Amino acid sequence: MKEHSVTLAHGSGGQAMAGLIRELFLEIFDDPELARLEDQARLESPAGKLAMTTDASVIDPIFFPGGDIGKLAVCGTVNDLAVGGARPLYLSCAFILEEGLPLADLRRIASSMKAAAARAGIRIVTGDTKVVPRGAADKVFITTCGVGEIPPGVNLGAANIRPGDRILISGFIGDHGAAVLDARGELALEHTLESDCRPLNHLVAHLLSACPNGVHALRDPTRGGVAAVLNEFAQTCGHCLRLRETELPMREAVRGMCEILGLDPLYLANEGKLVAVVAPKIAETALAALRDHPDGRDAAIVGEVTETPSGMVILHTIFGGERIVDLPMGEQLPRIC
Amino acid sequence: MKEHSVTLAHGSGGQAMAGLIRELFLEIFDDPELARLEDQARLESPAGKLAMTTDASVIDPIFFPGGDIGKLAVCGTVNDLAVGGARPLYLSCAFILEEGLPLADLRRIASSMKAAAARAGIRIVTGDTKVVPRGAADKVFITTCGVGEIPPGVNLGAANIRPGDRILISGFIGDHGAAVLDARGELALEHTLESDCRPLNHLVAHLLSACPNGVHALRDPTRGGVAAVLNEFAQTCGHCLRLRETELPMREAVRGMCEILGLDPLYLANEGKLVAVVAPKIAETALAALRDHPDGRDAAIVGEVTETPSGMVILHTIFGGERIVDLPMGEQLPRIC
Repeated sequence: MKEHSVTLAHGSGGQAMAGLIRELFLEIFDDPELARLEDQARLESPAGKLAMTTDASVIDPIFFPGGDIGKLAVCGTVNDLAVGGARPLYLSCAFILEEGLPLADLRRIASSMKAAAARAGIRIVTGDTKVVPRGAADKVFITTCGVGEIPPGVNLGAANIRPGDRILISGFIGDHGAAVLDARGELALEHTLESDCRPLNHLVAHLLSACPNGVHALRDPTRGGVAAVLNEFAQTCGHCLRLRETELPMREAVRGMCEILGLDPLYLANEGKLVAVVAPKIAETALAALRDHPDGRDAAIVGEVTETPSGMVILHTIFGGERIVDLPMGEQLPRIC
Repeated sequence: MKEHSVTLAHGSGGQAMAGLIRELFLEIFDDPELARLEDQARLESPAGKLAMTTDASVIDPIFFPGGDIGKLAVCGTVNDLAVGGARPLYLSCAFILEEGLPLADLRRIASSMKAAAARAGIRIVTGDTKVVPRGAADKVFITTCGVGEIPPGVNLGAANIRPGDRILISGFIGDHGAAVLDARGELALEHTLESDCRPLNHLVAHLLSACPNGVHALRDPTRGGVAAVLNEFAQTCGHCLRLRETELPMREAVRGMCEILGLDPLYLANEGKLVAVVAPKIAETALAALRDHPDGRDAAIVGEVTETPSGMVILHTIFGGERIVDLPMGEQLPRIC
């Protein structure tokens, strides 16, 4: 390609688009199904149940410490499969590009998608590319859809949560939200914060292999943070999820940023953390399994489930008090993912 | 919901988003898997091969005669499954909404997605919603991903095309492109043009049932039109695809618009037409099968395949001449789909 940036012709269905697909996407993603250039990929069906999920990524900025919009798009979808206990198999990716986007940026993004997909063990098998005129979108949006296989006997879900269950978190909370906020350049922090963006499927597989029974529900706390996930759990299971503030793993830099800006870290987005609700008798085994894996080294047991008050999330504060943790009302940080 | 338009809070992962999902998407799409509100749908795996495809829809305007961006998003993906011979099963949909989009517009779009999905017989099983600030996107973009089942023995593809094969088109060409151009309001045509946007899976099933052998390749000629599809076919099979201009079905209004604007109808987008390449001995049976179906009433045999010149598309003109039909170089009409 002679051009240095995306033009409307790259979305035309014509020669420029064919060039972009061949010289950029096919070369980087490097999958035989994609290379067939038919309108659909043709694949082996999963033997077990099929899991399917989708994510639109609109993050701003598109590059941030610890990742970029491409890595985020792949990891977000892989993780939504993984928390259902599914083994990720196939990924589609659709790009909406703003005219003028530097092709070097697109190449960097596609390369990081390939790296994340390889790490997760998912194949990029089909895609689409659209270009809109300058000002009709902001640089690049990526929508991924993932298909996975749920092995027989695996049935994770908020409806399985029981009173007495323990709540675990696989590591420091709020890293992604804090890193993106920092990357927007409106703060002047001493240390660079890094997003935790990563595929979680290997961590989930490790946990489920150590604890074949007793893992009741998993979720990755992205938009709306740990607070949103626990509220969704509480509403579905009809019990009360209680968190101990003293146990919540959090980096000092994130804690400091939240204090300065008046943000609540429970609402900050994560892109590489797992919330697990497990039966009490396997809680220590589950914790050990998480800590045993590089993606869960800083895991902690952070709370438990009680029967009442029904459908609520309660934080036991450092000062010995209790407060209700609601679903967020509005938007702390637009375009966080 | 009390609001009349989309706010940033609708993309927050919080209460406003939960309200939008429950009161708009769940109510309209009405599928039990979607209603579970887990991070992934859990579905029966197809018995045959799995087909997977994705489309990003960025059309402008979002409402046009014959359809809207929602109907287009569903049909585009259904049709990409259908032309692989796949029975459509499951659909994901991801929305990127611009702050300020009227909720009534979103409701109308979602309703038309549901209607198109019902007509095609595909289930909407998972989704995602993001909101970007005013000016960061243009009203609404929708990305769908579809999964389908390819029955045993079905193997359609451009690589199957042989010299002697006949080329069929299922009806009038260019309706979608002409209708969208008309809807942009820069022309003053006497008749309103309607997009042909529709799901093609029933037409394909009808054709394959009438002709279990001998259908070599199918494709829906969207962006880049019939010219782009035939060029892709020619490049893959390495033969020459020859079109007879006199046989091409085209509405007078579309022909007139193309003459006035200097557009070539072979490059205009279609969203409800099928190009089929079939063995010569079944060409008449295939034509009868297409014409026998309401979505193929105006089908015609429009050309044939010869061995040389390799990889080219040639039009035999009304005046008895020949001209090469190339892949489009640039972009006739941005945001046509």
